Amino acid sequence: MQKSIYQSYIDSISDSLKNGKKRGEIKKAYLKENLSGFDGGKPKLQWFDKVKDEAQFESLQPLNAITGQKAKYNQKTGAHPDFTHIKEQNTVDYHYITSMFIDIKNSTELFRKYEPITVANITTTIQRAAIHTCWYFDGYIQRFHGDGLLVYFGGKNKTLKQSTDNAINAASFFSYFVKNDLKNLFSEQGIENIYTRIGIDAGKDEDVLWHLAGMGECSEITTCSLHTSLAYKMQASATSNGVIVGDNVKDNTDVTADFFTVKNYTKDGKEVRYIFEIPEESFHYSQWELSWEKYLRKHPSIIEEDGKLYFRPAQTPTVVAPAPNLTYLKKQAEQIRPYFFGND
Amino acid sequence: MQKSIYQSYIDSISDSLKNGKKRGEIKKAYLKENLSGFDGGKPKLQWFDKVKDEAQFESLQPLNAITGQKAKYNQKTGAHPDFTHIKEQNTVDYHYITSMFIDIKNSTELFRKYEPITVANITTTIQRAAIHTCWYFDGYIQRFHGDGLLVYFGGKNKTLKQSTDNAINAASFFSYFVKNDLKNLFSEQGIENIYTRIGIDAGKDEDVLWHLAGMGECSEITTCSLHTSLAYKMQASATSNGVIVGDNVKDNTDVTADFFTVKNYTKDGKEVRYIFEIPEESFHYSQWELSWEKYLRKHPSIIEEDGKLYFRPAQTPTVVAPAPNLTYLKKQAEQIRPYFFGND
Repeated sequence: MQKSIYQSYIDSISDSLKNGKKRGEIKKAYLKENLSGFDGGKPKLQWFDKVKDEAQFESLQPLNAITGQKAKYNQKTGAHPDFTHIKEQNTVDYHYITSMFIDIKNSTELFRKYEPITVANITTTIQRAAIHTCWYFDGYIQRFHGDGLLVYFGGKNKTLKQSTDNAINAASFFSYFVKNDLKNLFSEQGIENIYTRIGIDAGKDEDVLWHLAGMGECSEITTCSLHTSLAYKMQASATSNGVIVGDNVKDNTDVTADFFTVKNYTKDGKEVRYIFEIPEESFHYSQWELSWEKYLRKHPSIIEEDGKLYFRPAQTPTVVAPAPNLTYLKKQAEQIRPYFFGND
Repeated sequence: MQKSIYQSYIDSISDSLKNGKKRGEIKKAYLKENLSGFDGGKPKLQWFDKVKDEAQFESLQPLNAITGQKAKYNQKTGAHPDFTHIKEQNTVDYHYITSMFIDIKNSTELFRKYEPITVANITTTIQRAAIHTCWYFDGYIQRFHGDGLLVYFGGKNKTLKQSTDNAINAASFFSYFVKNDLKNLFSEQGIENIYTRIGIDAGKDEDVLWHLAGMGECSEITTCSLHTSLAYKMQASATSNGVIVGDNVKDNTDVTADFFTVKNYTKDGKEVRYIFEIPEESFHYSQWELSWEKYLRKHPSIIEEDGKLYFRPAQTPTVVAPAPNLTYLKKQAEQIRPYFFGND
């Protein structure tokens, strides 16, 4: 039987929702006999299994077909490998970056039904799917943000355009997973829908300062830029499973303009046209809603059947010609593999 | 001349606001001659100076009078020292924690006027004042959240009540610094007011799961608890320089009930009485606004003169008797030092 490439994550979340510990179970045991006597003391958790984590990561390898590069597994947060000289040499750097904030909304609702041990399994599995997806698009996990993440795309010897293309792809595939693959799992259990909000913006070399925040081991190598800040605001502007991007993303990607719709910004309850503007400098910055479902449907590597999306099978010739400005995808044509169905 | 104990932070921020690089300076240099030729290439930044950081930390030592313990300097984020066995032994733990989210609002506005190098100096200095203040109250910096922080209070061999008292003190002193000491600096420069929002909630042993999120070095030792999640929501509920706490904080602290006012929660634009409830379990959880200014004014270690707050000078006998449930402060009476004025 054919399955989603995210099937392993789906199975884990589905199992937690169906068989996970219900709210109150731990408390009862705790009051009765002391927590250390409960559940064998300190249970090992499935999400903690490195072998399983690597296997889940590997299960997404069809995504390699998009970038044409084998994805790298694992990294250290808060220490982008291209900018470690900042901490070592007590300095700063100017270098472009594309920042993506991923928020997981409504996960607090899970506490209505489940013990924290079950909630943690569900939220960390969703988070892991996001981490792994970003790694397939050369993303760098800068920081955990509650259930969510701050991810940087780009670095030395990579172009701004590659970084925005990668961010758009990661956001699109991850959003598809949450909106479609996870869609029914939660509602079946009477849980209010869990969804994502994603914001992406890019700052150019002269607008992004890399520096160390904090001190010693209580620190992170991070960016200070209007556009990192705006990415966070864009995420907060997104609707359910929405992806919002800034002008600098839209203007520096091979993804064509018809996948973007301008989105007004709500400031203090009022809708304004621009998310940020300095009229005296004629600086007017827009945010745009990415039609990521439309983008995936038109993607030369993807076909649609019965309303679901698949990687175009490798033996099928590419019928939809890549758009002229999607040339970076052309070379993948011979490598494409089934996407939302992949044989186990 | 007498000064605020935060004077060193104030001076640094004031200097950046007055003399910092104005928006556009770097860009012009960049377009003209390439960034590496600008500003000596990679400037060293004052906030990067460990000697200065330690000196600023030491300048807050009057705060030691509150806890009666010498504050510890430095630590590693995402790896609470009492819970490292979780990563080492592949396990989980149940243990109470008090979580505090600190948000710095409106810092994006700084980009209207200043280059990122100046914005970074301002925001990291405010953040550093928060980190240092929390360290004086035995707080543990779990994670950077943009300009803000997630801070844990509590651990093994400490009581829940100690942790909530410490969190309330840290929030009160830091909020005073932002609201009063920084108040005029920004408005003098035509910058929209920068302010904090703080949320604090506590989860009991059986309600807080400690576990590892992520994998390998892309991970953090963290908590999964309704109350960690609620602390984040409470922060978002706070008004300018407001501190919001949950029932579990209010009910487990020596700070008396008259410093708390119930605060309705706004969900989907509608005001509701409880931030979280499960009616069928008769579980109704409230959030409360902490009157931290009133709390500081009544604090046995603090006196008010000309609308400003000071540590009660050591030679002055304590006039306002500590409230019976503030006994933990009594033993500090002989150690108290000037607070907002301290001789240089």
